[in-house]
Parts: sequence; C-alpha cells; structure tokens
Amino acid sequence: MSTTRQRVVALCGGVGGSKLVLGLSRVVAGDNLLVVANTGDDFEHCSLAVSPDLDTIMYTLAGIADPERGWGRSNETWTFMSALAALGGATWFQLGDGDLATHVERTRRLAAGEPLSEITRDFCRRLGIGATVLPMSDGRVRTRLRTNEGWLDFQDYFVRRRCAPAVLELAYEGADTAAPHPALIAALQDPQLRAVVICPSNPFISIAPILALPRLRQAIADCAAPVVAVSPIIGGQSVKGPTAKMMKELGHAVSAGTIGRLYADLIDTYVLDQADAAEAATLGIPTTVAHTLMTTLADREVLAREVLASADRIQT
Amino acid sequence: MSTTRQRVVALCGGVGGSKLVLGLSRVVAGDNLLVVANTGDDFEHCSLAVSPDLDTIMYTLAGIADPERGWGRSNETWTFMSALAALGGATWFQLGDGDLATHVERTRRLAAGEPLSEITRDFCRRLGIGATVLPMSDGRVRTRLRTNEGWLDFQDYFVRRRCAPAVLELAYEGADTAAPHPALIAALQDPQLRAVVICPSNPFISIAPILALPRLRQAIADCAAPVVAVSPIIGGQSVKGPTAKMMKELGHAVSAGTIGRLYADLIDTYVLDQADAAEAATLGIPTTVAHTLMTTLADREVLAREVLASADRIQT
Repeated sequence: MSTTRQRVVALCGGVGGSKLVLGLSRVVAGDNLLVVANTGDDFEHCSLAVSPDLDTIMYTLAGIADPERGWGRSNETWTFMSALAALGGATWFQLGDGDLATHVERTRRLAAGEPLSEITRDFCRRLGIGATVLPMSDGRVRTRLRTNEGWLDFQDYFVRRRCAPAVLELAYEGADTAAPHPALIAALQDPQLRAVVICPSNPFISIAPILALPRLRQAIADCAAPVVAVSPIIGGQSVKGPTAKMMKELGHAVSAGTIGRLYADLIDTYVLDQADAAEAATLGIPTTVAHTLMTTLADREVLAREVLASADRIQT
Repeated sequence: MSTTRQRVVALCGGVGGSKLVLGLSRVVAGDNLLVVANTGDDFEHCSLAVSPDLDTIMYTLAGIADPERGWGRSNETWTFMSALAALGGATWFQLGDGDLATHVERTRRLAAGEPLSEITRDFCRRLGIGATVLPMSDGRVRTRLRTNEGWLDFQDYFVRRRCAPAVLELAYEGADTAAPHPALIAALQDPQLRAVVICPSNPFISIAPILALPRLRQAIADCAAPVVAVSPIIGGQSVKGPTAKMMKELGHAVSAGTIGRLYADLIDTYVLDQADAAEAATLGIPTTVAHTLMTTLADREVLAREVLASADRIQT
C-alpha cells in the first residue's frame, strides 16, 4: 500500500455493520472514512421518514447508541409511545422520545426539499461525527420480501412479524432507477482509495440493496482499491438478526464460506472468524482469519485494523 | 327554564376558557355539553399539525393537563426537545414527549383524509372525555396579527415573540369560507339548548375567530337559548395572557365592561367579577356578579353553576 492511500469506503447495514464502522472510525481519520448506509429499510411511519440503518450508524458513531437494546438511543425515554398507545396509534414500531427528534426533523427538512444526504451530513456534523455518513442514494429504494405469507414490506417483516415468515425472494423496489450518491461513485474512482469494506451486515437485506443500485457493482469492480468483505456468520450462526434463518430459507448452506461466495465477483479478500478457519481454503481468494465477534470497543478497533491490513496485503 | 333544556354549547379558547369548561363538564351531563374550540391558532410546526386550544381543552377535560405550566400535559418529559436542539431543529415552540403523540397521530390521520373533528372525537373517546369537543370548523382558519413589526402568524406573535409586539389589527384568514362544523349549527338550532356560553377567553384571538365563521353570528342570534359571556378581565387585568395588553393596543379601555360591550349584539346576559361590580350597571343587559377567578376545581364548578343559572334567569 502507498501511504498516500488513506480513504476507506464502508458499505453498511444496521447494528452488526455499525460495530465495525465504529472500529474503522477509530483507525481512519474522520474525513477519510465514507460510510455508505443501506436505505432499503427506510419507511414512512406515522407520517415520519424513518431511516433505521442511517440512524443506527449515526447514533453509534456519535456515541449515543443504546448498547444493550442494539437500536435507538441511550438514555432514551418512552413517554411518546405510551401517549400514542392511549390515543390508539400504532405501537408495533417503537419510537423513543429522543429518536423521534431525528425523524421529525428529517421529515421536516425532506418536505422542505433537502436531500436525505444533506440532512444526514448536517446531523452528523452537529453530533460531532468526523466520518462522512452517506445514504446509498437520495432516491427511494424499498426492500420487500416474498414470504410464505405473501409479499411484505421490510419493516412489516422485520419488526411487526419479527422475521417469522419464511423468505422466498427479495426485491429492492426503486433500486433500478435510484442514483447511487455521486460522492460514493467519486470515492470509488478516487486514486487515494485504500479499501472498500463490505461490513458484516446481512447480505440480502443490508448489502444487496446497495449493490442493486445502477452502475454500483461495476463501479466497485472498476475501482483500483482492494475490496474486502467481513463475514456476518460466525461458526455457522448469525451474531444477531435473521441472516442465518434467511440463508436457510433461500436455500444456502449457513456458513461464512457461503457469504464469501455470494460476494465472489466483487471482493479481493475475505475476513472470517477463527471458528470458520476451515472454510478459508475453499474460497479461492486470499482470506484473513480473525476474531470477528465484536463485544468490546477494543474488539471493534482490532477487527478494523485487521480488515484494513487484509486489504493492504492485496496488490491492486 | 324548562327542565328538558339540558344541552350547553361553550365557545372556548385555551387555558382560561378551558377552566370554565372543566367546571361545566362537572355540572352538565357528558353528552349534553358541546365544547367548540377555536382553531385559529392551529399551525404546522416541524411538519406536524398542532392545535393548541383543542389540546388544552382535551387535556383539561381528560385530567392530564399540567396545572402549573398552564399548557401541555402533566408528567411530561422533554427528551425530544433536547434531542431536537442537538440536531439544530426549532426550539422556540416547546413540544413535550407525550404531547407529541397527539400531534404525530393527528398529522397522520389528517394526511389519511380524516377530518379534524373526527380525529378529535376519537381522541376524546379514548381519553375518557364525556363531553363533545369540536373544532369550530374542519376548514383551515389562521389568525394573523398586524403589529408594529408587521404582519405575524399567530404562534410567531404568541410564542416566539411572547406577545411583545403591539397589535394593531387582527385577521382570521380562511374564516370567511371555512364552514362552521355542522354539529355546532345543529346544536344552536336544537330546541333542547339551555345556553350558549362564551368562555372567559381572549375575545380577539380565541372567540373572534369562531364568530368570524360564515353564518355563525346569525346562528347564535337566531338561537332560542340565552347567550351568556363570562368576562376574562378581572379588576382591569387579564388573569393570564395578553388580553389586557391587546385591548390597550387596540384602543379599548381595559375593563370587564368593554368586553361586555364587544359582545353586546350577541349576548343576553353577562357574568363579571365582584371586583368589577360597578361596571355591571353600564351594560344595559342583565348581569351576574360572581367570583370569576378560578383557582381551585371547586371555583370552576361554582362558576359553571352561576353561569348556567344566569342564563336560566333569561326569558327567551
């Protein structure tokens, strides 16, 4: 690696991916880290524009994410939800009082004509976040799932039905026409780019919507920097969320190797857990075996360094 | 009064009027009390539909109004506002976390096409309110004020500028075309109507927008029941809010008598405070001198009985 190559692009979903993003933010100088958030699980709830993955990343980087719940803000209160319940409002999607401020202010600014990316940039600046957090597109993409109960909107599946229906097929509505954010394309073309990191997020619901945007796969394939993915599967299980269940339902073997093969045409190297070391040899690309379960802040930072080092070892 | 006449219509603004409304709700059986709320101070804030007078009445009747602040809910939390401030949102209008539920759910239902009156009726039912609370109209009316600083929207004047600008003129935009709610017109025509009560609210910003609706003055003039107003001025001062200051700025003597004369063409009788007993004789209509400062719940109930008795004494 040339020491002048300092920029890192990270493609990220929600909770799992944002742990690695937090690690990356501690080893990559603020303005060199571009975090690209999935917006396929954005939705309108109570007439509010909710962007769950964007907010998880933003709260995590700002140090205000709730560490136990895994979503939303720490020191949250819930007065709104109980008042909403008393008025007969929808209670299946929990909105904390502080979290609401993000949705209300975002909704107001979107209605005033500001793009989501500009609003996000301003929120991050105000929250003291050094990295750039970017929605994958300012256009509208909505992940939908065909299940054994029919087609479901993402949050209907994910929150209301708690991932219980079996997933048979996914669709990323709008992804064929939503423009990838120009700053993402520019970063991929930047000769200073050190690495593209595919975070340990669910490949079907967090990463695939990003990759479904027009020209994005090609832009990643064309980019001069190495592309490295980190397995969200550890020892044949997903750390959190429905990744393993969904893989089974879609007919895949639940393994770190499967994920590596899903990304085969995109990645130059793959980081997987020590528990899955045996699968490394089956992939036909350079791999790094690491401790990928990120429990502590130190875990996140160590893994971030390992991921960047694995990219640096690739000759591009 | 015939004992069959049991229905009462109360025209009401915010805090002051809702105290009497609470008293009326304790002496008039639930389904016989129709409270008509000013919606001239409704506005859109943070893309939310806020109806301050409707909500003050609703919270007061539900027993969840904050007794000390005079607006909003008791046991309120403020996590939303502090998070909104951190994101650079507007902080000049305070929205409590529980209060927000009302605005968010109302906004959602309005966007879905429900009229404000239906939403309010459902909220009141869920909050256990026996009386009917009705916005004066499902149409849009917006009070604006010409001041020494130019024309201001109502909440700009009232909250943001804390009533500091001198008021020269008022306008009730939309009031010339907004239909009075049909249930209000029907109640005024009901032979069972016992009284129309003009609550001790600010005549210019709380009562005038209601009276500015098409056909409403005539419907009140035509109604068979006595019309009784209660003075919001006690001993030459307004109990709360800018009533006295606004009267001065508009060239009126600040007195209970002035208010009585403002309503002269509408009312059959007038209730004013013991402190203003000397003005009673100047009005040329029957008056009742009462203790009108409502500090305790008992005060509210006693005054409500006095107001209804004063109406009952009128031969119509």
